[in-house]
Amino acid sequence: MNADFEDLQARLAEHNDLLSAAMLLRWDQATYMPEGGNAARGRQIATLERLAHDRLTDPALARLLDRVTPAAEREGDGSFPARLVRVARHDVDRATKVPAKFVSAFANHRADLYERWTRARPANDFRSVAALLEKSVEMSREYAGFFAPFDHVADPLIDLADPGMRAASVRTLFAELRGEMVPLVEAITRAEPADDRCLREVFPEADQLAFGIEMATRFGYDWKRGRQDKTHHPFMIKFSLGDVRITTRSRPNYLPEALFGTLHEAGHAIYEQNIDPRYEATPLADGTSAGLHESQSRLWENLVGRSLPFWKGQYPRLQERFPAQLGGVPLDAFYRAINRVERLPIRTASDEVTYNLHIIMRFDFEVELLEGKLAVADLPEAWRERSRTDLGVAPATDADGCLQDVHWYDGHVGGAFQSYALGNLMSAQFFDAALRAHPGLPEEIEAGRFDTLRTWLGKNVHTHGRARSADEIVLAATGSPLSPAPFLGYLRDKYGALYGL
Amino acid sequence: MNADFEDLQARLAEHNDLLSAAMLLRWDQATYMPEGGNAARGRQIATLERLAHDRLTDPALARLLDRVTPAAEREGDGSFPARLVRVARHDVDRATKVPAKFVSAFANHRADLYERWTRARPANDFRSVAALLEKSVEMSREYAGFFAPFDHVADPLIDLADPGMRAASVRTLFAELRGEMVPLVEAITRAEPADDRCLREVFPEADQLAFGIEMATRFGYDWKRGRQDKTHHPFMIKFSLGDVRITTRSRPNYLPEALFGTLHEAGHAIYEQNIDPRYEATPLADGTSAGLHESQSRLWENLVGRSLPFWKGQYPRLQERFPAQLGGVPLDAFYRAINRVERLPIRTASDEVTYNLHIIMRFDFEVELLEGKLAVADLPEAWRERSRTDLGVAPATDADGCLQDVHWYDGHVGGAFQSYALGNLMSAQFFDAALRAHPGLPEEIEAGRFDTLRTWLGKNVHTHGRARSADEIVLAATGSPLSPAPFLGYLRDKYGALYGL
Repeated sequence: MNADFEDLQARLAEHNDLLSAAMLLRWDQATYMPEGGNAARGRQIATLERLAHDRLTDPALARLLDRVTPAAEREGDGSFPARLVRVARHDVDRATKVPAKFVSAFANHRADLYERWTRARPANDFRSVAALLEKSVEMSREYAGFFAPFDHVADPLIDLADPGMRAASVRTLFAELRGEMVPLVEAITRAEPADDRCLREVFPEADQLAFGIEMATRFGYDWKRGRQDKTHHPFMIKFSLGDVRITTRSRPNYLPEALFGTLHEAGHAIYEQNIDPRYEATPLADGTSAGLHESQSRLWENLVGRSLPFWKGQYPRLQERFPAQLGGVPLDAFYRAINRVERLPIRTASDEVTYNLHIIMRFDFEVELLEGKLAVADLPEAWRERSRTDLGVAPATDADGCLQDVHWYDGHVGGAFQSYALGNLMSAQFFDAALRAHPGLPEEIEAGRFDTLRTWLGKNVHTHGRARSADEIVLAATGSPLSPAPFLGYLRDKYGALYGL
Repeated sequence: MNADFEDLQARLAEHNDLLSAAMLLRWDQATYMPEGGNAARGRQIATLERLAHDRLTDPALARLLDRVTPAAEREGDGSFPARLVRVARHDVDRATKVPAKFVSAFANHRADLYERWTRARPANDFRSVAALLEKSVEMSREYAGFFAPFDHVADPLIDLADPGMRAASVRTLFAELRGEMVPLVEAITRAEPADDRCLREVFPEADQLAFGIEMATRFGYDWKRGRQDKTHHPFMIKFSLGDVRITTRSRPNYLPEALFGTLHEAGHAIYEQNIDPRYEATPLADGTSAGLHESQSRLWENLVGRSLPFWKGQYPRLQERFPAQLGGVPLDAFYRAINRVERLPIRTASDEVTYNLHIIMRFDFEVELLEGKLAVADLPEAWRERSRTDLGVAPATDADGCLQDVHWYDGHVGGAFQSYALGNLMSAQFFDAALRAHPGLPEEIEAGRFDTLRTWLGKNVHTHGRARSADEIVLAATGSPLSPAPFLGYLRDKYGALYGL
């Protein structure tokens, strides 16, 4: 057992090293690589990912897993060996069941479609991508087929991002959420909208970044095991548990861009930085699901970063940094500005109240496309109609409608969106549980102390990595299965107060 | 043939991609990696290099080379297939002949010795590393043994850096060089030394870097295919022919550090940027020898960058950038300052006149250690004695003597130093040849135009990559085999004028 288990860990570490190296090549591509490096860089990343895939699908690894499983399970269901074997098996199965020929055909198809989409969106030309998108739907169904039997064709696709989640369970959650959200959005948007002009002054970039760095530091982002660079799109990326980086971007005349972006990415990074170091270089050293990952970024960005206690403590510091821009703006007005709710057709520009309605709409369309109930050709009109019903605003163009998100044009149709809303739900449920355990949290947050919250999250959420599923973590940390109730309660309390509902 | 040749290129590209990725991991480690990344980074680099080594020693690759060789040779000795097969065979042989067990034992030994050396040098404690250094000598002999038969035990070690060079040929060159250099150094250092205080004012870093970047740009370094970052030790590093980066460091009160460092690394990079793009992702896309590489860095740093025509053109620009520091210093005084000759015990601090004597001494010691004619225990005294004879100055401590260079404490004893002096000799020989082809070069350089020189080097030196050996390139580009005569002529002319000899 011991020699076999060491062999297993060595093989998994090699797989991990190849993927981590590929990650660094991607990070460099997005940050510092000169343009001349592009052609070779694509090939180099493809080589590393192919070799990593070869490692994972090596029949010797599958045999090794078979050999160590009985002994690992004898160590107990929650033991490190048992968890490692289970997660490794999940990854091996997923990699093995999809034929290499399909992987490469889909990669080529994606590249074509993505390239076409980058031209179709500015040209507002959905027809030019419709046939290829139709093919994506077919190939997504084909992908799901490799994992048959399943309850719903979307299940294997959802499982890629949120293991354990199914179309049925997501639908149930989303139906309840939508039923409450549509009237809530209506009620809020009937009220006088918040004035956010104070966020649209000119804010020098260096000060924006410095303030974001100061806040991320307070939250507990460890700069000895990370750094921040600028990229076109912000992201979090990990090369090891000791090296978890974030990126940001700023807009000179829109303060929230860099500020909340940094808090968001720092939330992702704090999760990864606090995974049990024992899991380093194994498949357990990762976020357990996209939804749970998003819960950590949204918790710090929204539940903390857009809260009144947080700004009671930090707003004077922000005013000190931007005296000309914010010196005359009272806390109350600033707080209202950063929590402005608006009916907007664009998902990425939308606030925390309307955001989930964008996601639910996309999820429903994905499912209907996979089921064959919605034809690709009918998507633009369905998008406009549903936007009108749910958001109260229809996009004027497809560019701002069904062409707005890259996801379907660069990956599967199915499983691409639910994580964002699941993350929002979880973020409120975790925050509620932390508050029950530590009722003094709001006062600590106001005082600029975040260690109680971060430690609670570390112990109940972060440390487990992939050793526990999102379901297990939510249940153990909050005492209940995932539910929309805490999130709805949070919105009602916060926006009820803000908009006098 | 075609399918086999494509298979060969695919295998070599995979090997290349793994090594390029390892290079990027090293670059990141030296530039931006947070300290927390260190442990995993070492393992990740080792994994990539081990997988690359596995690719190169895969018996299937050797068989493939056997299969394609007859057809490749039929294409003609100078053809791409024939050159590729020859260079790949050289690399495969070198990787295959050294047992994996030795590679790993030597890696461990090096790591120990290096760690010990980092403490021994500041403590001036040669005895604490003597036994491990003795073991390095033995292991270097053992390494050479894998390549038996050979004329001299140093030959396989010299071949690692300078393929085709032998102990005998280097000795012949160095004997002639030393015979002339010792009296020349004596003559120069009898004269009044140059006053270099003007280089030791305070120079703001941003201006130092900006001037270096401006000069590298004029030389022809292509920033679309490269960039410059700051590191503790400057270096050039390549991830593909489209991405060749340099690093630099500056000292606030010593202008030459960043300036000549940048010109030096830009020289290395211009070489790699101008290798025939056809060779991309093959073993031909590299510098052909360490000596030839050094010739390119030294040519731009010294033959151009420390020349009077260059500064006639550029000194006014430097003065504009540093008016307070250099505004009152005449060109002539500045030119003398950057060409100050001094008897110094430290190799890296020494000027272009005395530098080679440092190298020849190290080369002779390496050979004597390998031959068993010099015992490690006697090295400190031998070092002092030879320094006195050749340089006219003995180091006061071993820290400034036989402990000063990392090379033997982090690698083989043998083949570690000759490249520096060979590079100096080649740089003058190439420059002479370029001057014969383009007698107007000095006027162009004075006018700030470097394209004729760079184009001549590109066509005669750079483009070949490893498709031609250093010997072939020197002979074809200059019409003669490598000789110390052009370098000696260059020194006599330049320093004769400077020091009125």
